[in-house]
Amino acid sequence: MIGNVASVGVGLIGGSFGLALKRAGFAGRIVGVSSPATVEAALARGAIDEALPLAEAAGQADLIYLAQPIGRILDTLRRLDPLVRPDALVTDAGSTKREIVIAAAAHLTRCRFLGGHPMAGKEKRGVEAAEAGLFDGCTWVLTPRSPGDLDPDFIEWVVKIGARPVILDAAEHDRVVSFTSHLPQLVSTALAATVGENLREHLEVAGPGLADTTRLALSSYGLWRDILATNTAAIEGALTAYIAKLEHMRDNLRTRRLEEEFAAAAELVSRLRAQRSAAL
Amino acid sequence: MIGNVASVGVGLIGGSFGLALKRAGFAGRIVGVSSPATVEAALARGAIDEALPLAEAAGQADLIYLAQPIGRILDTLRRLDPLVRPDALVTDAGSTKREIVIAAAAHLTRCRFLGGHPMAGKEKRGVEAAEAGLFDGCTWVLTPRSPGDLDPDFIEWVVKIGARPVILDAAEHDRVVSFTSHLPQLVSTALAATVGENLREHLEVAGPGLADTTRLALSSYGLWRDILATNTAAIEGALTAYIAKLEHMRDNLRTRRLEEEFAAAAELVSRLRAQRSAAL
Repeated sequence: MIGNVASVGVGLIGGSFGLALKRAGFAGRIVGVSSPATVEAALARGAIDEALPLAEAAGQADLIYLAQPIGRILDTLRRLDPLVRPDALVTDAGSTKREIVIAAAAHLTRCRFLGGHPMAGKEKRGVEAAEAGLFDGCTWVLTPRSPGDLDPDFIEWVVKIGARPVILDAAEHDRVVSFTSHLPQLVSTALAATVGENLREHLEVAGPGLADTTRLALSSYGLWRDILATNTAAIEGALTAYIAKLEHMRDNLRTRRLEEEFAAAAELVSRLRAQRSAAL
Repeated sequence: MIGNVASVGVGLIGGSFGLALKRAGFAGRIVGVSSPATVEAALARGAIDEALPLAEAAGQADLIYLAQPIGRILDTLRRLDPLVRPDALVTDAGSTKREIVIAAAAHLTRCRFLGGHPMAGKEKRGVEAAEAGLFDGCTWVLTPRSPGDLDPDFIEWVVKIGARPVILDAAEHDRVVSFTSHLPQLVSTALAATVGENLREHLEVAGPGLADTTRLALSSYGLWRDILATNTAAIEGALTAYIAKLEHMRDNLRTRRLEEEFAAAAELVSRLRAQRSAAL
């Protein structure tokens, strides 16, 4: 039974987690740990019931939810062990999993840990953008080191707030997101940077296709620095495969080989859309 | 004064041109030239008033609007000269301009020609998807060989149907769209093909970013074959610049160089959004 939740970090994800739990009927207490300005906004938003320093919040919590940037999650894991109750479950929302799972195994000796990654987000960040429905229909990856890490009470709440748990090995998660998330980000950033360098004028000639394809390029480097630093090898591999594909297409602009690439690409988009409509 | 329009091709663009002219108060006759099935659909949709074979339609027209795929426009230009009235203006909607302008100069000796490219489109094609508002706020590139090609009556209708005329040299147009349109298409196709090859499962882990960035990858090769064949050199150049950018980013995943790329990319997206909101 989870009666007391500590959300360490109460931005878009941590704040939405609190709002989603309340919408789903969670009757326990939700304690936020963050800077004074952030916890004030989270209290005003109704995403948390109370703000406390980490040591006090962790000492009461059945569930400790680390909803910080990756580097901060790694810092918190290094400090958390003496503060937790032995029956607590620590979980997280970090966008890469291998380094976090390794750090948790090394530092958390007194309680359980289950790596997690809710595949939710939006362009706006911060608790002001948090919403109870953020996780509706979204995949929530869980990366147990052993099946016993899969706490049924926590997973029940993941389902109750509208998400779909998917269980993956941490390294496989990192390889998958290098293609589904990290590569699209760099593809989009590189496209916008290339267009910006080569077109000093006549941007009015751009149609909606360029806008769609560069939408991700507004993402801040601050958010991505930790992701790129903790998944470098997988991302290098994805970029190398992508560059090889582009070179093949450049060499075949006037041959039927390109038709095969268009067909393979359209098939992936169809699979993706079928996947997404099945989820809604 | 334009009293009689012949639209050669009445798909999404040709059909929308007819509907847009009528919405703007055009009181003349709009004649469609296409296959029996297409002109029937265009008549039912109200996009044309009458269907005629090319020779008869061209013989009556003040304005001949070539709204076909590029390869078909090149074919029509080879056949059109003996059919036109000497005071007619021929214009087109082809997505690349240099080869079309050259073909028009070589083959159209009896009347005027003005290359054009309305930067409008949508995912669905055909006259069934045509709409009077398709050109609202969109850029309509015109590529005159000399200022005298800029027929004021035609340009007045371009403005009346909601578009914004932009005058460019044909070769400069082709260079600009290699970055704003052709590169985004190939970036998106290559991304979808790469993800499809590398992820046989776990597509449920994809967030909305992959869907946005691969939306263009549903485009059909049939539409793109002519574009790629008539703008090969510029597209090769754009791809080479883009690949160099990706290699630079791959080599700097953990350095501050990447921060510069994110900043340059975000600046382009901001310019693009300012451009688009100014247009609406």
